[in-house]
Amino acid sequence: MFLKNTWYVAAWSHEINNEALLGRTIIGTPVVFWRDAKGEVAAFPDRCPHRGAPLSKGRVEGSTLRCMYHGMTFNGQGACTYVPGGQERIPAAANLHRFPVVERNNWAWIWMGEADKADPSLIPDTYWLDSPEWRYKPDYMHYGVNYLLIADNLLDFSHLAFVHEKTLGGSAGYADVRPEIERLDNGLRVSRWYMDSPPAPFVKNLVGWTDNVDRWNMYDFVVPGVFLMDSGSAPVGTGAREGDRSQAVQFRSAQAITPETENSTHYFFSQAHNFSIDDPSVTETLHAGLLAGFKEDWDMIHAQAASLALDPDFKMMPLNVDNALGNFRALMKKLVSSEQALSRAA
Amino acid sequence: MFLKNTWYVAAWSHEINNEALLGRTIIGTPVVFWRDAKGEVAAFPDRCPHRGAPLSKGRVEGSTLRCMYHGMTFNGQGACTYVPGGQERIPAAANLHRFPVVERNNWAWIWMGEADKADPSLIPDTYWLDSPEWRYKPDYMHYGVNYLLIADNLLDFSHLAFVHEKTLGGSAGYADVRPEIERLDNGLRVSRWYMDSPPAPFVKNLVGWTDNVDRWNMYDFVVPGVFLMDSGSAPVGTGAREGDRSQAVQFRSAQAITPETENSTHYFFSQAHNFSIDDPSVTETLHAGLLAGFKEDWDMIHAQAASLALDPDFKMMPLNVDNALGNFRALMKKLVSSEQALSRAA
Amino acid sequence: MFLKNTWYVAAWSHEINNEALLGRTIIGTPVVFWRDAKGEVAAFPDRCPHRGAPLSKGRVEGSTLRCMYHGMTFNGQGACTYVPGGQERIPAAANLHRFPVVERNNWAWIWMGEADKADPSLIPDTYWLDSPEWRYKPDYMHYGVNYLLIADNLLDFSHLAFVHEKTLGGSAGYADVRPEIERLDNGLRVSRWYMDSPPAPFVKNLVGWTDNVDRWNMYDFVVPGVFLMDSGSAPVGTGAREGDRSQAVQFRSAQAITPETENSTHYFFSQAHNFSIDDPSVTETLHAGLLAGFKEDWDMIHAQAASLALDPDFKMMPLNVDNALGNFRALMKKLVSSEQALSRAA
Repeated sequence: MFLKNTWYVAAWSHEINNEALLGRTIIGTPVVFWRDAKGEVAAFPDRCPHRGAPLSKGRVEGSTLRCMYHGMTFNGQGACTYVPGGQERIPAAANLHRFPVVERNNWAWIWMGEADKADPSLIPDTYWLDSPEWRYKPDYMHYGVNYLLIADNLLDFSHLAFVHEKTLGGSAGYADVRPEIERLDNGLRVSRWYMDSPPAPFVKNLVGWTDNVDRWNMYDFVVPGVFLMDSGSAPVGTGAREGDRSQAVQFRSAQAITPETENSTHYFFSQAHNFSIDDPSVTETLHAGLLAGFKEDWDMIHAQAASLALDPDFKMMPLNVDNALGNFRALMKKLVSSEQALSRAA
Repeated sequence: MFLKNTWYVAAWSHEINNEALLGRTIIGTPVVFWRDAKGEVAAFPDRCPHRGAPLSKGRVEGSTLRCMYHGMTFNGQGACTYVPGGQERIPAAANLHRFPVVERNNWAWIWMGEADKADPSLIPDTYWLDSPEWRYKPDYMHYGVNYLLIADNLLDFSHLAFVHEKTLGGSAGYADVRPEIERLDNGLRVSRWYMDSPPAPFVKNLVGWTDNVDRWNMYDFVVPGVFLMDSGSAPVGTGAREGDRSQAVQFRSAQAITPETENSTHYFFSQAHNFSIDDPSVTETLHAGLLAGFKEDWDMIHAQAASLALDPDFKMMPLNVDNALGNFRALMKKLVSSEQALSRAA
Repeated sequence: MFLKNTWYVAAWSHEINNEALLGRTIIGTPVVFWRDAKGEVAAFPDRCPHRGAPLSKGRVEGSTLRCMYHGMTFNGQGACTYVPGGQERIPAAANLHRFPVVERNNWAWIWMGEADKADPSLIPDTYWLDSPEWRYKPDYMHYGVNYLLIADNLLDFSHLAFVHEKTLGGSAGYADVRPEIERLDNGLRVSRWYMDSPPAPFVKNLVGWTDNVDRWNMYDFVVPGVFLMDSGSAPVGTGAREGDRSQAVQFRSAQAITPETENSTHYFFSQAHNFSIDDPSVTETLHAGLLAGFKEDWDMIHAQAASLALDPDFKMMPLNVDNALGNFRALMKKLVSSEQALSRAA
C-alpha cells in the first residue's frame, strides 16, 4: 500500500525526451512520460485504452502521442484524436488521464493521487540541482526490494562504519556517535557531528586530507522518501560547527526513493559539491566514490531482502540506532492508513 | 480453458524424427512425438507412467519407444512391452494413450479430445504446403502469451500500418480500409482490397515494384487458430480484383497458433509464392521479410501481455476494427463452454 | 515437511573457513557456518536479529562474528557482544541459537531439532573418508528438486543400465538383477551381485579390464538421506562373493542428500578407492567417471521433476524395482508424522 497524495520523483529531466519514450511504473501504475508541443512533461497511464499495448512503445508525432499497435493518437491533454478503421466517433473512454507533473531543478515530480490536491508548494527545495554554484552528476539505480528497506538504510548512518568501511564511512567509532533527531511535520531531521576524527575515505581521496577533521551530516528525510543532505568536513577547529565553512569542503546530496512496486524501487541520487566546480574530474571522482558506496548498500539491502523473504514471521529487533527509521515507518503507516480511510469514506 | 475436440497443428513434419525426439506441450498436456515402424507419427503423453520421467528423453529402438530412466518400453500403439527388475506381469496402467495424429501437407495435426470424434475431414485444406507449384520455408516461433492475443493480431490488419510500417505494411491509410468480414461455421473470412496504392515494403523489396498496385488480403481464420491467406499485388488496373491474376505476384500464407499453456503458444508459419519458384533466393527473401514482420508482432504482443498482466481488471475498448476478433473470441468461448457442459453432463 | 531431530550433512570440512563464510540453507533454515577460536564449527541462523541481514555477509574478527550491516558481534556460543549506537544494554533477543554440529571424517553434521536430543553416536560411520588406506575427491552438486526424487534414484539401481549406459552402468541385463533388500531400523540395506558379467564402463576405463567380472553393490541408505556403499569388481571366480577380495578393485562411496528447501537439495558425494592410492590420476579418473554419471542423474531427475510439476495429480505406478524406495518413503513419512505429532502435543 502506497501513499497516493504526495509528490514522487519520477525521473531526471534528461530521461524524458521524445526520441526514446520513458515508460516507468510509479507505485504500481505504469506511466508513459513524453514532452508536449510546449516541451512540458506529459504523463499518462502507459496502457492504450484500446487493447492495452504500452504507449511507451509508441511515438510522438508533433503534438500527439501515437500508440504503435493500431495507431490511436492522443494530444498533450490526453484527449484521443484518432482511432483506426475509418471510425469517426471517438469513444469517451478513449481519453487518457494526465497526471500532474512538475519539473523543477532537473527532477520531474509526479502526483499519483487526486489531481486537485496536487499543490506544487509541497515539493521540497532542491535548488542546488540547478544552480551555477554547484556541480553534480545525476544517476539512477533500480532496486528489487520494498522502498522501506532503503529508507531504513538512509535513516541509520551507523551502517557507514561497516557497509562503507572503505568508501563513505571509514572510522569504526562512527557507529557509536548518536545523532540528534528532530521530528518534522513530514519526516525527520538527522544531524551528526563527528569532531576531530579521521576524514572519510572518499574525502581523503578527493582533497588529499589525511589529518583529522570536523565532519558533519545533516539531512532531512521527508515523505514519501526524499533525502536532502548538507554534509562536509573541515580542518579541526576551523569553526565549521559554529558556522564558518570557509575552510570546509561542502556537499549537498539529493536522493529520492520512489516505489515501483511492493518489491521494487527507483533510486535517484546525486551529490553536489561547491568547490573546484570548474574541474569536471572532481565531479567524476566524487560521483565514482558515491556510486561505489551505493553499490555496497545495494548488495547488502538485496541480501537483507532475500533473507527476510524466507521468513515472513521475522520481527526486527529495535535498537537505539533505529529511532529515526522507526519514526519514519510509523509516520508513513499513519499517512497511508488515514488516506485509505478517507478514500473508503468517499 | 481450451477446446479439446479439434485438430491442432502440433509440428512441421520435419520436426518429428527419431534422432531427436520431439516433446511439445499442447493445450497444457506434454506430448512426445516419434515415428513408428511404418514411419507414421505416434504421439503419447510425454510422461512415463512409472515415475513420471519424460519419454522425450527416451529413445526409439526399432518399433518401440524406451523410457531412458528405468527402461520401460512401449510399442507404436502405446502398449507397454517391458518393465525392469525381471518382472513378468505388466500392469494395465503401464499402457499409454495414443493421440490421433494426421500428417498432411507437412503439418502434423493432433486431436487432444475424444478419439472417436477425430474426423480427418475436419482438417482445413493447405494443399500449397505440398505442391510443386508453390515454394516456402517452414518456420516456428514460441510466444510467452495466451493464444488469443495472437489471434487478435491476425484478425485485425489495421496494425500493419503501424507495427509493420517498414516491413509488411507500409501505407498509413491502410489502417482505414474497412475489410469485408464474413462469418463461417468455424471462424471468419476477412477480405481487404486496397486499390491503386503503394506496394508493401516487402513486395517492393521482392519484385522491385515502385508504382502503385492493386493489393489484396483474403483469409480464413478458423478454429482453433488457423490462418490461411490468399494475398497478392498486381499493377493497377490489370484486373486482379475481377479475377485476372496473370500479372500479379501471389502468396499463400499458412499460419497456426496452438496453445502450449494458458500463457504460452506455438506459432507455425509460412508464406508460399508461385512465381520464381526455381529461385531459392526469392523464397529466402520472402521469408526474411515475413520473419522481420513477425518479430515486430512478437515484440508488441509480448509488451501488450506484460501490460495486461499488471492489471487484471483492465477491459479492452471495442472499436469497429475489432469486429472480426470480437467474433472469433465469442465463437471460441461458446465452443469451449458447450464442450465443457457436455463433459460435465457425461 | 522435514525431519528435524536427525543429523544432516551440512558441508565438507574444507567448505567451512573464515575467509569466505558459508551460508547454506538446511531444511528451509538459512545457517551461517564459521570456525570459532578453537577451530570448531559454529553454526547460527544466518539472519541478524537486528534487521535480518545475512550473517554470512559478515566477517570473523578473532573469536567473534560481526554482522557487516550495522556491526553487531556474536561470540562462538552465539551471545551478542556489541550493538551499535553507543548502546550499553544488549537485549536478550540479540543472542543466537548455536546449532549442534559434529565434524567427523571431513563431513560436518548438523542437528536442526532439539539440541538435547543431538546424540553424536547416531552419526553413521564413514571412516574411509579419513583413512590413510583410502583416497577420494570430495564433491558437491546442487539440485533444484525435492530430495525424495534423489533418494528414489539411489534406491533403485535398475536405472544404471539406461541413465548410465555408457558411464556407471553398462550391461542392459543389469536392470533385471533383483537385489536383496533388508530393512534396517533407520533405512535399508540393498545388495546386488552380478556374477560373470561385463565390467562397468568406468571400471574398464580405470583398470583396463575387458573380461567378465563378478560385480557387487552393497549399500545402506539411511535416514535422512545418507548412502554408504561397498562396491567392487573381481575377475570371475576369484571368490569375491565368498569374501576373498584380494584380486578385486574395491570402492567405498559416501553420498548424502540434505534438503535445502522443499524443491532443492544439497548433494555431497565421493567414491573412495583402496588400490593405487599413491597415483592421483586414479583418484581423478574415478572421480571424473562418477561425476559424468551423476550429471546424467541430474539431467534425468530435473526432467522428471519438471514433468511431475506439470501434473500434481500424477500417481507413480509401483513396480517390483520400487520396493526399496517405497519402503524408504514410507519410513520417512512415519518419522516425520510422529515427530510432528510429538511437537504438537508439547
